[in-house]
Amino acid sequence: MALEPGRTVEELRELRELTGNDDGAQRVAWTDTWAQAKGWLSEKLAPLGVEEEVDEAGNQWFTLGGGSERALVIGGHIDSVPNGGWLDGALNVMAGVEVLRRIAADGSPPVTVRLVSWADEEGARFGRSLFGSSAASGTMDDQDELRARTDADGVRWEDALREHGVDLDRALDAGRQLESAAAYLELHIEQGPVLESMELPLGVVLGTFGVERHQITFTGQAAHAGSTPMDKRRDALAAAAKLALEIRGIASRTGDGAVCTVGSCVTKPGIVTSVVETATVLLDQRHLDGEKLAAMLAEAKEASERFAREEDVEVEWERIWRIDPILFDEALIDLADEAVGDVAGRSHRLPSGPLHDAAEVARAGVPTVMLFVQSLRGLSHTKLEDTKPEHLELSVQALDRLAAKTIERLAPAS
Amino acid sequence: MALEPGRTVEELRELRELTGNDDGAQRVAWTDTWAQAKGWLSEKLAPLGVEEEVDEAGNQWFTLGGGSERALVIGGHIDSVPNGGWLDGALNVMAGVEVLRRIAADGSPPVTVRLVSWADEEGARFGRSLFGSSAASGTMDDQDELRARTDADGVRWEDALREHGVDLDRALDAGRQLESAAAYLELHIEQGPVLESMELPLGVVLGTFGVERHQITFTGQAAHAGSTPMDKRRDALAAAAKLALEIRGIASRTGDGAVCTVGSCVTKPGIVTSVVETATVLLDQRHLDGEKLAAMLAEAKEASERFAREEDVEVEWERIWRIDPILFDEALIDLADEAVGDVAGRSHRLPSGPLHDAAEVARAGVPTVMLFVQSLRGLSHTKLEDTKPEHLELSVQALDRLAAKTIERLAPAS
Repeated sequence: MALEPGRTVEELRELRELTGNDDGAQRVAWTDTWAQAKGWLSEKLAPLGVEEEVDEAGNQWFTLGGGSERALVIGGHIDSVPNGGWLDGALNVMAGVEVLRRIAADGSPPVTVRLVSWADEEGARFGRSLFGSSAASGTMDDQDELRARTDADGVRWEDALREHGVDLDRALDAGRQLESAAAYLELHIEQGPVLESMELPLGVVLGTFGVERHQITFTGQAAHAGSTPMDKRRDALAAAAKLALEIRGIASRTGDGAVCTVGSCVTKPGIVTSVVETATVLLDQRHLDGEKLAAMLAEAKEASERFAREEDVEVEWERIWRIDPILFDEALIDLADEAVGDVAGRSHRLPSGPLHDAAEVARAGVPTVMLFVQSLRGLSHTKLEDTKPEHLELSVQALDRLAAKTIERLAPAS
Repeated sequence: MALEPGRTVEELRELRELTGNDDGAQRVAWTDTWAQAKGWLSEKLAPLGVEEEVDEAGNQWFTLGGGSERALVIGGHIDSVPNGGWLDGALNVMAGVEVLRRIAADGSPPVTVRLVSWADEEGARFGRSLFGSSAASGTMDDQDELRARTDADGVRWEDALREHGVDLDRALDAGRQLESAAAYLELHIEQGPVLESMELPLGVVLGTFGVERHQITFTGQAAHAGSTPMDKRRDALAAAAKLALEIRGIASRTGDGAVCTVGSCVTKPGIVTSVVETATVLLDQRHLDGEKLAAMLAEAKEASERFAREEDVEVEWERIWRIDPILFDEALIDLADEAVGDVAGRSHRLPSGPLHDAAEVARAGVPTVMLFVQSLRGLSHTKLEDTKPEHLELSVQALDRLAAKTIERLAPAS
């Protein structure tokens, strides 16, 4: 049976009908709609005769046994944010289904091939993303905190997990699933504008950005807007404004995909008749290179202190969150480049800003790579999320080519 | 009886005891504490045998008849903001009391001399400042709107006024009080840092600033902070930050006391993971020269449009409020300069950022001038508001000298 990429597009539309509404996809993890999607996925794969298993973290595995226990794993997630898009996560899974069909049709593969649908990638209901993949990778270390979390209706996460057959105390046992994994592949929509702006359907992901996230507070002196001469002011907003502009220079001087964002600025007292006393900004900095990320952070700190001096205000930094860059496997990146070149003529290597389950798998030491397919207008996490059908089909073909090349590489010398 | 400036300081302390608490002055207009302060003021003036009258707007007048009906008016306000300072408004009134005592002791003056304590200068309870003086000047034109206003406890302003003997329909009748006014003098704390920084106790006020107040909204595009390259962003905060910095250059290039303030910046969606889609800032611009104020506004608009183009965002302006500059009387400014020179050696002319009752009187066509006395650290509208006692005494002397010079000028040729 040959690969039928058009079937993937049809199945994604079918899933959208089944689990979405006028506001978008509603497959929020640990809900009935998510369970319904999981059941639908099982039915799609049943004809292949693959073995199905749900692990201790709620991840859904489909295994096509091969000549070796070493496994090629293809992954995605079928959960969505509320009012989400039809492709984020689901494309990954359904493309994997089609690739599994093609491999199964070709007869027993030389290595085991597995498809995993990770549980709760989005963290939409309980605020903790990458649940299933971090349990499997062994990086999850916040079970005690997770246990106490509740959703917006006050339902405890622990109880919601139990309803879906997951015991938080045993979630890390899912780690055994990756023991035999020799390679991990994931296709995802880009969720950004890079490929569209380059007029490329597909790209190869180098890894996920390291992130430094800080809250920075400048403190000056409230003073009457009418009676305080310009040269007597200690204007916290002026220092914050300088920083909001300077981070763009820091990102562009650093290059290689560096991004810096001030996403929020809060001013106090925040009235038209007073000079701003405190201005608090949230700064997000990302880079694929840990050293460059650290240098960007240092540069932003130095700049903030310089601006504070210039404006005669104080500045304080507080870290909100950080994560190291996670680099994908160089050999698999080369294979992915070949696969994309085969189906689309031209490839492009780019980092991923958002995190993905693939990053967790890479952290577990499994050689990993991702493919990106173009997102229209870069939109995601909204019902407006979309990708041209012809690009979706190309992406299924590219994943299939990459899977074939990877199996060839993993196969024991005959 | 000679002028006793030290008595003014003592009486201000007495008033603070009587109508303040640990949080500061509590003489909010249209409250029992305010009424108590008014009664205390009457008692202070009773020994002088001056005629007392409360007009249709609640202003409290004390009249010392003279050789002519033409009147020198000295004014202030005894109301305060909640948790206010001990000097804002009350100094003006109590210095006037001491000057009235000196004039009365010297025998019948050649012109009538009147002291007015304006009602509700601060607008603290119902949000409309300069109530009594704008009624007297005839500029009040918002009675219908005022009628419906309520305080934080839901008390209607109209009802609160009636309790204090004021009928909103008749408030403008207070205008008759200014018919015979030939000059108006007001002493006030500076409420700004200029005199302190120049190490001067006293200054002469040129007039009150014209004000242009606008809300400016920049609208870009929300986009993922991780997946949106720097050159693909439409960052509303960047344009707002440029404007927040540019207004300082506009003020300093314009000079002559020009001030420009961005007192608030609100960002949306305002989260660390998104480029800012809308940034809304509040801009306050002030100048004593109407044409220069208009030019500053035009320059800010032009700059905002340039920044919007540079950042590929939209910009919209909405006027919140404006008022023309109000210039004080040149001849009285010269007299005030002489008076300050007499008591303090050196004078300085400066504009007033905040509005004052004096501005309303000037708008009614009465020749007007104000004296400022140094404020420590420029603080006002807080219990931390303060002025050195020796400066308070000098200010009473200066007001007295100015009153004497003004009476001399107003006196009919003998």
